[in-house]
Amino acid sequence: MSTIKNIAVFTSGGDSPGMNAAIRAVVRTGLYYQLNVFGIQRGYDGMVNGDIFPMDAKSVANIIQRGGTILKTARSQEFRTTEGRKKAYEQIKKFNIDGLVAIGGDGTFTGAAKFIEEHDIPVMGLPGTIDNDLAGTDFTIGYDTAINTVINAVDKIRDTAESHDRLFIIEVMGRDSGLIALRSGIGTGAEAILIPESSTDSKALLEKLAHGRKDKSSKIVLVAEGDEEGGAFAIAELVKEKFPNYDTRVSVLGHIQRGGSPTCMDRVLASRLGVAAVEALLDNRRGEMIGLINGDIAFTPFSKAIKHIDSLTPGLLKIVNILS
Amino acid sequence: MSTIKNIAVFTSGGDSPGMNAAIRAVVRTGLYYQLNVFGIQRGYDGMVNGDIFPMDAKSVANIIQRGGTILKTARSQEFRTTEGRKKAYEQIKKFNIDGLVAIGGDGTFTGAAKFIEEHDIPVMGLPGTIDNDLAGTDFTIGYDTAINTVINAVDKIRDTAESHDRLFIIEVMGRDSGLIALRSGIGTGAEAILIPESSTDSKALLEKLAHGRKDKSSKIVLVAEGDEEGGAFAIAELVKEKFPNYDTRVSVLGHIQRGGSPTCMDRVLASRLGVAAVEALLDNRRGEMIGLINGDIAFTPFSKAIKHIDSLTPGLLKIVNILS
Amino acid sequence: MSTIKNIAVFTSGGDSPGMNAAIRAVVRTGLYYQLNVFGIQRGYDGMVNGDIFPMDAKSVANIIQRGGTILKTARSQEFRTTEGRKKAYEQIKKFNIDGLVAIGGDGTFTGAAKFIEEHDIPVMGLPGTIDNDLAGTDFTIGYDTAINTVINAVDKIRDTAESHDRLFIIEVMGRDSGLIALRSGIGTGAEAILIPESSTDSKALLEKLAHGRKDKSSKIVLVAEGDEEGGAFAIAELVKEKFPNYDTRVSVLGHIQRGGSPTCMDRVLASRLGVAAVEALLDNRRGEMIGLINGDIAFTPFSKAIKHIDSLTPGLLKIVNILS
Amino acid sequence: MSTIKNIAVFTSGGDSPGMNAAIRAVVRTGLYYQLNVFGIQRGYDGMVNGDIFPMDAKSVANIIQRGGTILKTARSQEFRTTEGRKKAYEQIKKFNIDGLVAIGGDGTFTGAAKFIEEHDIPVMGLPGTIDNDLAGTDFTIGYDTAINTVINAVDKIRDTAESHDRLFIIEVMGRDSGLIALRSGIGTGAEAILIPESSTDSKALLEKLAHGRKDKSSKIVLVAEGDEEGGAFAIAELVKEKFPNYDTRVSVLGHIQRGGSPTCMDRVLASRLGVAAVEALLDNRRGEMIGLINGDIAFTPFSKAIKHIDSLTPGLLKIVNILS
Repeated sequence: MSTIKNIAVFTSGGDSPGMNAAIRAVVRTGLYYQLNVFGIQRGYDGMVNGDIFPMDAKSVANIIQRGGTILKTARSQEFRTTEGRKKAYEQIKKFNIDGLVAIGGDGTFTGAAKFIEEHDIPVMGLPGTIDNDLAGTDFTIGYDTAINTVINAVDKIRDTAESHDRLFIIEVMGRDSGLIALRSGIGTGAEAILIPESSTDSKALLEKLAHGRKDKSSKIVLVAEGDEEGGAFAIAELVKEKFPNYDTRVSVLGHIQRGGSPTCMDRVLASRLGVAAVEALLDNRRGEMIGLINGDIAFTPFSKAIKHIDSLTPGLLKIVNILS
Repeated sequence: MSTIKNIAVFTSGGDSPGMNAAIRAVVRTGLYYQLNVFGIQRGYDGMVNGDIFPMDAKSVANIIQRGGTILKTARSQEFRTTEGRKKAYEQIKKFNIDGLVAIGGDGTFTGAAKFIEEHDIPVMGLPGTIDNDLAGTDFTIGYDTAINTVINAVDKIRDTAESHDRLFIIEVMGRDSGLIALRSGIGTGAEAILIPESSTDSKALLEKLAHGRKDKSSKIVLVAEGDEEGGAFAIAELVKEKFPNYDTRVSVLGHIQRGGSPTCMDRVLASRLGVAAVEALLDNRRGEMIGLINGDIAFTPFSKAIKHIDSLTPGLLKIVNILS
Repeated sequence: MSTIKNIAVFTSGGDSPGMNAAIRAVVRTGLYYQLNVFGIQRGYDGMVNGDIFPMDAKSVANIIQRGGTILKTARSQEFRTTEGRKKAYEQIKKFNIDGLVAIGGDGTFTGAAKFIEEHDIPVMGLPGTIDNDLAGTDFTIGYDTAINTVINAVDKIRDTAESHDRLFIIEVMGRDSGLIALRSGIGTGAEAILIPESSTDSKALLEKLAHGRKDKSSKIVLVAEGDEEGGAFAIAELVKEKFPNYDTRVSVLGHIQRGGSPTCMDRVLASRLGVAAVEALLDNRRGEMIGLINGDIAFTPFSKAIKHIDSLTPGLLKIVNILS
Repeated sequence: MSTIKNIAVFTSGGDSPGMNAAIRAVVRTGLYYQLNVFGIQRGYDGMVNGDIFPMDAKSVANIIQRGGTILKTARSQEFRTTEGRKKAYEQIKKFNIDGLVAIGGDGTFTGAAKFIEEHDIPVMGLPGTIDNDLAGTDFTIGYDTAINTVINAVDKIRDTAESHDRLFIIEVMGRDSGLIALRSGIGTGAEAILIPESSTDSKALLEKLAHGRKDKSSKIVLVAEGDEEGGAFAIAELVKEKFPNYDTRVSVLGHIQRGGSPTCMDRVLASRLGVAAVEALLDNRRGEMIGLINGDIAFTPFSKAIKHIDSLTPGLLKIVNILS
């Protein structure tokens, strides 16, 4: 039987759509199991400073459809120090909190892992990031919304590309990973995608532009911001140099990719994982990220979740090539 | 080695978002493997009547983002007869077509299974239906778009529900299955969902309205059209009788659920399955539906695919209850 | 110089998108002019019952983009009585409120007109209704959002209409007026629109179906709910009887038309009118609705605003006919 | 009585949402009045090169909802020369075209004015540009869609701004005009807008950041690309220098602003103006842009339409300041 009575939830790192659905699920599930539930403002920063407040069912009403996070998020220099984590633990204890749910990404779980090492407090993590770059889950909360935001933006740009017979180089998020570029590239029928995981893709693009279908009047190329060539503007320079006749334009989608009302998939994912996080705390689990693998709840130790995955779904890259 | 040289693609049954992305994938993949590709208009009806025409890369340009199907779809009484199927086969042979890709649902595959039985022509099927009610794939093409259409509609209705403290009974598609209601119910934070798979849910709803949280001012209930109580209006009658004080309203979402630009997930799914369908024909497969199970391409004989699945993802129903 | 020190704002009648933008504008403008600003919950009902609370700049933060009304809205039987209005006035006086801004439609202004007659309190009105059926303004707050919701829904339905060669009869809101049907009919390229303002339109539709273009495979007909024939289902019966060969379907768009994030036009309109309402109170105006006519702020006595306009923009009806 | 028998329509300059609705209206209206209607590809470039083809009712089916232009658009160096315009006129005569409808902006009408001067051919113009910078119409075709695209993008960015307490400097289109920034600034509740029409706005922004409300945690500033300070990045530098403590970010919305499905207002505007253009040709008008002023069709000689308007709607700028 569990001794957990009071839990707290917080969001940390970059915001992602679905974080509010996850917060709602944690709060409602806690109440369902008759726990007291607290919210912590601005991630570890609020934990260090004691910005902690009780939440009830109403405090998460009407938020499932909202982007961002009602608990806010921030970076905390202080929590990176032993001293800061000690302060955080003291605050936690002041409220008699005996279980934490952390919603975030890589940095969030790194912090949580250290916190657990030094202090006796169970923490379960939920993967909240648009990048989908965590091991231990097929999809992170926010990824599905982000790729839909991308394809809707590219659909708009395609109107202009088609009307003017232009080549558009479009930069999407992904500092270390091409996962956003990959799926949204397939979803928009991109001519090519350029991603950090491949170092030959810019050469392949130039090859394709030289020898590709001549009946295709407009072209869309998606570039992950972390591509080794240096982003969309750099790629555009390469293209313009070799193909001055192309009417080449650049668009950097930027911050719109983080926001917006979450898709159904992200809301359902966040809800399922939120329920599972509280139930896991009650089951006396700790130090794990909860994900969904092949439709089932999966637990992954923080140390393994934060290793970036380095392989893309086999076959997806090939599809870009066949279909463009 | 494959002897396939000329393939044709058609859509059949109710249209679903992503069918165009699937058509595009089949055509482009066929061309990639140097096949001749034909389109058949209006499903089996066009097959019987020889409405068959050659397609090239350009004929599927700029359609990946469009709802509906450029090949149109229809019901064919004639194809249900032995004579009709004979005529269809003759037309197929006239064009030297030696492989077919059928995009549709239950009825489509039933027809295809009979067709193969009687005539020597390989057919591969793609699951194109918003209902997600086929065995052999985790998701059908169109389902993800449909549930997003539902949650966006319910988000709008919630504005009014909140403003007026109303109880809304909202009917969504699903004659035999509550799958659309289930996920969109979680995604909209519905108070309850009523589905054909459960016969006690209307009683549970009344129970909940009698004893539920008093601080919740507005409520959303999702009803699958095939619920045994008889749809949203019938449920509303039950509620009004027991709870005359509630300001209860009904909304039937209707046909908007079939249309719209497909989501990224539906576009990617359709693209992957379309590529796989052509490659399967080249591998001399026949008589199977191609789906995605746990992220991998899966083949299911038509006879098994068309049996409706009767179980919902375990745990999802419970989540509705915990979170509302 | 104005003696106004404390004002209150409320919403009444059916909710409409942009009401929150109007509330925000009233509150912020009041504060800008150093007034105290109060919110009244649930319209006249909250006024009668004293559900009145102070608002600051923060209480309207982050609401400009939200549908519905954060102040809620309700019908009040009590306010319709002399006694009820007396109670409301007493509550108003208790808070020292010396100016009111009422956001709503017909019924709202009828109530306000009576209130002013009986009690010494200035009230200015903002036209908040999706119906666009008030004299004194070119557009009401919410109308532009509603017609965009309609055309987006019809765009989805058109996917199915095109795919199946169907005739869709789509019912939109408008009990006394065809204004929603008219503009969304033009915006969706509808074959015909049927509205209360015309009693010959159903006959014209049948005529058109009999003699119209034969190369048009799918058709969309928009019907205002208040059409004298009795709504979409009644029209569908007429059509089916005369043209049994058409594959005719009905869709009633329903409550989705009231909700959703307001369009830019509605947000700007609401913002301008909200500013003007407070400035008008400071100018000692009372008993008028504030609208926008030809781009300029216009004042209309409540008694004139609440007379339904009975004429449609000349030429728009003719356009439906030319373009379909 | 008119001697016009054959008309042609083309789009020119940057594409804008609603151009297809305008093309559809011109074609359908021409056919309604029993004219032959031609389309010209890629604007003046196609005219010079004889890329002219007959259009029927079906060729504009199902395009009213699409962004971009099915007739494509391009710049033509050749048409800028007397020789090029002579070639264009010869092509026009080859097809017996005796009336033209030009859809575009400033450059389009400058070209048309020269063309008419040198050759005997009536041309009527429709204002198709997202910039709303033409005299002779309250709104250009595409403006309403563009500002809605902007506010939807900013709504997404606000999710992140709110979650992180950030200051976002967002750049929108408008090389010579702040009209997009102005309305979308009001529509998003921007803290400030910076536009070419005002040279003191950056100073005012810094002032406001120094002395503004302290309870506002996140801030949105909209900058027109043509602002004299040099765009969003330049403004961000100014802000960062003075307020290093702000977490300041930049987002350039870019090309998404030109595309997308047109709003209802843009579809109706395009439809009305397209009908009026053909009727004007039949009335023997020539050399004028057709616009909508205070709800009525208005004719403006090309020479006057192409003068940029230099005044913003009075009062709107003040509203930004009151409400933020």
